[in-house]
Amino acid sequence: MNSGYPLPITFLSDFGWEDEYVGVVHGVIATLSPDCRVIDLNHRVPRGNIRAGALTLLRAIQYLPKGVVLAVVDPGVGSDRKALALSTDWGYLVGPDNGLLSPATAFLGGASAAYSIENPDVILPAVGRTFEGRDRFAPAAALLAAGEAQPEDLGPRVDAALLEPLLLPLSEVTDKGEVEGRAWWIDTYGNVQTNITPDDLGEAGIGPGEVVEVRVGLMSYRVQWVDTFADVETGRPLMNIDSAGLMALAVREGRADQHFTLAEDSSVVIARSD
Amino acid sequence: MNSGYPLPITFLSDFGWEDEYVGVVHGVIATLSPDCRVIDLNHRVPRGNIRAGALTLLRAIQYLPKGVVLAVVDPGVGSDRKALALSTDWGYLVGPDNGLLSPATAFLGGASAAYSIENPDVILPAVGRTFEGRDRFAPAAALLAAGEAQPEDLGPRVDAALLEPLLLPLSEVTDKGEVEGRAWWIDTYGNVQTNITPDDLGEAGIGPGEVVEVRVGLMSYRVQWVDTFADVETGRPLMNIDSAGLMALAVREGRADQHFTLAEDSSVVIARSD
Amino acid sequence: MNSGYPLPITFLSDFGWEDEYVGVVHGVIATLSPDCRVIDLNHRVPRGNIRAGALTLLRAIQYLPKGVVLAVVDPGVGSDRKALALSTDWGYLVGPDNGLLSPATAFLGGASAAYSIENPDVILPAVGRTFEGRDRFAPAAALLAAGEAQPEDLGPRVDAALLEPLLLPLSEVTDKGEVEGRAWWIDTYGNVQTNITPDDLGEAGIGPGEVVEVRVGLMSYRVQWVDTFADVETGRPLMNIDSAGLMALAVREGRADQHFTLAEDSSVVIARSD
Repeated sequence: MNSGYPLPITFLSDFGWEDEYVGVVHGVIATLSPDCRVIDLNHRVPRGNIRAGALTLLRAIQYLPKGVVLAVVDPGVGSDRKALALSTDWGYLVGPDNGLLSPATAFLGGASAAYSIENPDVILPAVGRTFEGRDRFAPAAALLAAGEAQPEDLGPRVDAALLEPLLLPLSEVTDKGEVEGRAWWIDTYGNVQTNITPDDLGEAGIGPGEVVEVRVGLMSYRVQWVDTFADVETGRPLMNIDSAGLMALAVREGRADQHFTLAEDSSVVIARSD
Repeated sequence: MNSGYPLPITFLSDFGWEDEYVGVVHGVIATLSPDCRVIDLNHRVPRGNIRAGALTLLRAIQYLPKGVVLAVVDPGVGSDRKALALSTDWGYLVGPDNGLLSPATAFLGGASAAYSIENPDVILPAVGRTFEGRDRFAPAAALLAAGEAQPEDLGPRVDAALLEPLLLPLSEVTDKGEVEGRAWWIDTYGNVQTNITPDDLGEAGIGPGEVVEVRVGLMSYRVQWVDTFADVETGRPLMNIDSAGLMALAVREGRADQHFTLAEDSSVVIARSD
Repeated sequence: MNSGYPLPITFLSDFGWEDEYVGVVHGVIATLSPDCRVIDLNHRVPRGNIRAGALTLLRAIQYLPKGVVLAVVDPGVGSDRKALALSTDWGYLVGPDNGLLSPATAFLGGASAAYSIENPDVILPAVGRTFEGRDRFAPAAALLAAGEAQPEDLGPRVDAALLEPLLLPLSEVTDKGEVEGRAWWIDTYGNVQTNITPDDLGEAGIGPGEVVEVRVGLMSYRVQWVDTFADVETGRPLMNIDSAGLMALAVREGRADQHFTLAEDSSVVIARSD
C-alpha cells in the first residue's frame, strides 16, 4: 500500500536504549531524508549476537512495510567485513556482511544484486571508525529511502553468492519417530521457540491435543500440545504453535526457560508419549 | 487541531522492549496505514497488570491527540474474552474486553457503541493464537486510523453496558476526619501516587502547607503538604499534588516507596497531625 | 535539507521508559503540532545528572536535523530556575536553565537570544508543579516547531550572558609531557570516553600505534593506541579515537570501566611508555 519515496526504514540493532546511539542514527536519517518514517524493530538484540539479530529480522520481515531494512549487529565493526546494501523484490537491506541479513534475504527470495558501501560521498566523515551504524549504514539507508541514491551509487557491486551465510540448525525427524531440534529464541517472558515445525511433528505422527514427551538433556517432561495458554491452569507448562508458526514451550503466567532448564541453542527432543 | 485521516494512534502495552513485539505491531500499522503517526505511550506496563495499564491510560488520555488508542495488556489472550473497538466522542479505543479500556472510556463520557473485532477480513492470518496485538488489534486500529474501516466493519455490535468493568478502590473520608485511600501507582522514581484527592483532604479539614500524619500499616509518619520538591531538604519526605492532580508521597532525590514501605495497592491513611 | 514547518523536535530526558512520561510528552507535542517529527535522542540519562545530559546533547548535536531541541534533565523542577527557549543559528533549544543546554549552545556558536517561558497561554494548566516537561517545555517546543509561536511569544527576554553555565573539566598537557584528563562518559558497553583529544596526545609527543601508559589512581596500565577494536585480541584493552573524536579506553568484547576501575569523572593520565 506504500508507494513512492521516501520509503519507510525499519531499524534493528544491538545498541540498547541506555545511550544515544539509536537516537543519533535517527538524527542522521532525519537529516538526509526528512519525511522518512523509521520503525524501531528492536534495539535490544543481545550485544554482538548475529544469530539472534538475524532470527529477529526473519520472524518480523513479513510484517514490515516494504522499503528499507537497516540492521546493525556488528561485532566486527572496523574489520574488513563489507558494509552491504542488498536489492530484493521486497526492497533494500542494509547491514554488515556477517550473516545478519542472510535468513531474511533468503526468505525474500534472495538478493538480485549486492553492493559494498564504499562511496566516500555516502559515508559521513569521522575520525574514529567505531560507529559505522551512524557513519556508513544510516546514510546509505536514508539515501535509498529518499530515492536520492540507487544501490549502485553506494559502491562497487559484489557477488551475492559470496556473501557471508548464516548457518541455522535444522530440525530432524529420526527413524525412531522422534523430532530433534533446538531452542532458537527465548523471549522476555521466558517462552521458548524451537526450530521444530508443526509439520515435523505431523511427520512423527504427533498431532494437536496430544501429550508429548519433551527431552532436554537428561530430563524428560510430559506436556500437552494445546491451542492457547488459556487451555492450561496457571503455572502449568504447555506446548503450542507460537506467533511465528513454530512449536514453542511455555508456562502459563510463568517462564518456560526455567521450567525446562533451557537456554538459547539447547537441544530439544519431542517424542510421542506412551 | 488534528483533522482528517490518518488519525494518530497511541499505543500502550506490556510487551516490553526486549523483543520485537512492539516493532512488529508498528510494522503492521505502517503497512496498513503508511502515513499514520504512532505514539508509544508506554510498553513497560507490568506484565498482565490490567489495572496498571488502565490507570496509565486514564492518567494520559487528556494529553493524547484525538484519534485511536491501541491498548494491549491481555493476560487472557486466546480465551473467549472479546477484542473490542469502542466509539467515543474523543475517538476510538481498541483493546481486550478485560477492563483495560474502562476507566479511560468512562473519563471520555462512555462508549457510544462497541464492536467485537471478528471480521476475518480485518484479522491477519496466523497459525498460532498468541499474538493478537499483531493479528487482531493492530489491523483494527490501523484501518480505523486510515479511515478504511468504520467500527461497524470490524465485527458485530455488542452491548456497551455488558463490557468488563474495572473496579478501582475509592478513597473515603471517615467520621473521625481521616482519609482512607490506597497507593495506585509507584513510578520509576519511587514516587507514590494515591487515590486521594486534594478535595478529600479539604473535606477532612486539611489544607496545603499543613503537616499531616500518614499511616501505613502499623507505621506512622509526619509529612508536610508542600507545593514542590524544592520545598524540602534533599532526602526528606513530602506530600504534594502530583502531575495527575492526586495526592502523592515523595522523597526529594529519594524513593518514597522505600521510605514509607509502600507497595502498589497498599492502604494509606492521611489524618490531621496534632 | 529540512525546510519549512513543522520543524523536527529532538527530545532528550532522564524520564526513563518505565512510566508514561515520555509518551505523554509525545502526546502533547502531537496535539499541538500534529505533523511534527519527534526524535527520541535518549531518555535514560542518569536521573538528575545534568552533566551527563549536557554531554549527550553535545556529542549528538551535529547529527540532528535542524529544528528544535527539547531537553529535560531538571532536578530543580518547581524551584525558581528559569524555563528557557534559546535562539541559535541552528534552531531552538528548550530546557531548564541549569547548564543542560550550555555546551551544545556554545558548540552552535552561542544563543542570539534567550527567553523565559512564562506566558500562561503557552503553559498547560495543571494542579501540581512536578511535570514541567509536559506542562511548560513540551508546549513551548511544539509551538516553536509548528511555527505557531516565535521565541518572543513564550515570555520575557532574558540576558543570555546570565544563563547558568556548565563547567566541564579541561584536559591539560603538563610540563612533564603527560596528559591529564578525566572520564566523561561510560557507555552501556563499558567504553570509557575521556576529555582528552588526539591533539592533546600529539602535543605530548604521542601518536597513533604507540603503546602508552594509562594511570588511574595508583594503578598503571600499558595500552596501545589502535585504529579499531579488531586490532587487538578478544578481551584485551585498547585506546582508540571514539565516535565523537575523543580518546577512549575500551576492551574488545569487554568492559573498560571494570578493566581500568574507572567511574564517571575519574582522573585519567596518559603518558609515554618508556
